[in-house]
Amino acid sequence: MALDAWVNESLYPAWGQRFRVKRWLARAESAFQDIAIFESETHGRVLMLDGVVQITEADEFVYQEMIVHVPLLAHGAAERVLIIGAGDGGVLHRVLAHRTVSRAVMVEIDGEVIRLARAFLPDIGGTAWEDPRAEVIVGDGIAYVREAPDASFDVMIVDSTDPIGVGEVLFTDAFYAEAARVLSAHGVVVNQCGVPFMQGEELAETSRRRQRFFPHVGAYVAAVPTYVGGFMTLGWAAKESPLAAHTPAEIRARAEAAGILGKTRYWTPEIHTGAFHLPPYIAALLPP
Amino acid sequence: MALDAWVNESLYPAWGQRFRVKRWLARAESAFQDIAIFESETHGRVLMLDGVVQITEADEFVYQEMIVHVPLLAHGAAERVLIIGAGDGGVLHRVLAHRTVSRAVMVEIDGEVIRLARAFLPDIGGTAWEDPRAEVIVGDGIAYVREAPDASFDVMIVDSTDPIGVGEVLFTDAFYAEAARVLSAHGVVVNQCGVPFMQGEELAETSRRRQRFFPHVGAYVAAVPTYVGGFMTLGWAAKESPLAAHTPAEIRARAEAAGILGKTRYWTPEIHTGAFHLPPYIAALLPP
Repeated sequence: MALDAWVNESLYPAWGQRFRVKRWLARAESAFQDIAIFESETHGRVLMLDGVVQITEADEFVYQEMIVHVPLLAHGAAERVLIIGAGDGGVLHRVLAHRTVSRAVMVEIDGEVIRLARAFLPDIGGTAWEDPRAEVIVGDGIAYVREAPDASFDVMIVDSTDPIGVGEVLFTDAFYAEAARVLSAHGVVVNQCGVPFMQGEELAETSRRRQRFFPHVGAYVAAVPTYVGGFMTLGWAAKESPLAAHTPAEIRARAEAAGILGKTRYWTPEIHTGAFHLPPYIAALLPP
Repeated sequence: MALDAWVNESLYPAWGQRFRVKRWLARAESAFQDIAIFESETHGRVLMLDGVVQITEADEFVYQEMIVHVPLLAHGAAERVLIIGAGDGGVLHRVLAHRTVSRAVMVEIDGEVIRLARAFLPDIGGTAWEDPRAEVIVGDGIAYVREAPDASFDVMIVDSTDPIGVGEVLFTDAFYAEAARVLSAHGVVVNQCGVPFMQGEELAETSRRRQRFFPHVGAYVAAVPTYVGGFMTLGWAAKESPLAAHTPAEIRARAEAAGILGKTRYWTPEIHTGAFHLPPYIAALLPP
């Protein structure tokens, strides 16, 4: 990827999106990956890792709201949240918007992502970095969960890259086994599972893996503008009951108690409950 | 657009998708537009008009199922269907899949689109072209509705390009006034309203226009992989009652009677009813 006027996303070799660049802001080769931040003409500032779009200022709300509000409100009493990845701070920001959350630990392996995001994408993390309920750790997510006490978190959010490169260990049996152990009795883990129209195997494979360690697994969908290719999926696994077992009215009441009702641009109680209804072409990728 | 190995969609000047071309199949300058059909490496064959993706073999099912099954099943007793545009034959194909439909008239202004689609995208229209219930007219959609008798159709589907170039007249007051007249008492019109994350004004403007001639207007969403940019919207207008007033069970029974249940890859009764719940960033574009 050269410092050109156009940036072509390199996620898929023969199809993808491209952005016209207004201005380059940062470019770094960290110990883990190639980090690029630029200002686009159409989507505000854009963060790419190894040539793949992670976040844009214009549409980050879709992904963040759906990866955070759905598991926290489906759980219903989530106080302790563990975030793996999400170095831009956006997930942490949305988690802490729930006044019901007492502690949020974020473990990001690449300190350079945090440093550059705080410098060039300050609105994504917002005030989350200084929140007294937040603990930000630069380190290996899988090592962190291995050392964490049993039942020490209610919800775990895995906001990783696709299962290539640095994010690969977050899609392994070893990781899910530890995830099940560190989650409390009603615990829930959610992880991004890619765009099944293009990457169907990612959802299929991680669903099979999660099923080995959790009695309930499934997925829900979100239409994220710059995760191009139709719906992306967020895979979930739960220790006690399916994540989808709520009415919009129940979810609405929980959102009100958490203080997020009316403050979202994509998530609503109805979108929340509707997102568990998968199109057949996606449902076919899940275990029976 | 040159006959290159990569085709960049030109819908938006500073963002968009690109396809790697395996083989060029057809290229023509009709009286109305530039028509291109190529075989992509990722999405099967692709039809572009004036540089904008209209359909790909790989994901056409999403758009066709949602623009056809939703209005026909929400209407509940649709026998006579008028299709404007959709020269590739895909909408006609899905309409005729409803055994409850007795007549489908398709009016496409550009005979070259029909000719090239039948030659190079034969699976899109399938057997629809020879169906005795079908009447395919090469002509001006607005002229057709102007001359059609009052109350002569139950459902109208406007599968146009965006409101630029040849499709522009299908977004005018004159068109919607005639649409209201030719629809029967319970009549419904649906038209594609673009991707609101990128083209918000298209949904806002056509909703305002439809509201002048119909008591009920709204929109529903579909995540079409190659209409990149998050949800696309299908705007609806109805003469008698809102399109969303059904339970999944009611829609399921109608789909069974129509003979389409279990034959879809995106549409389900739950996706049907859920699609009317709009994310706030889209709902904000509709009239109050």
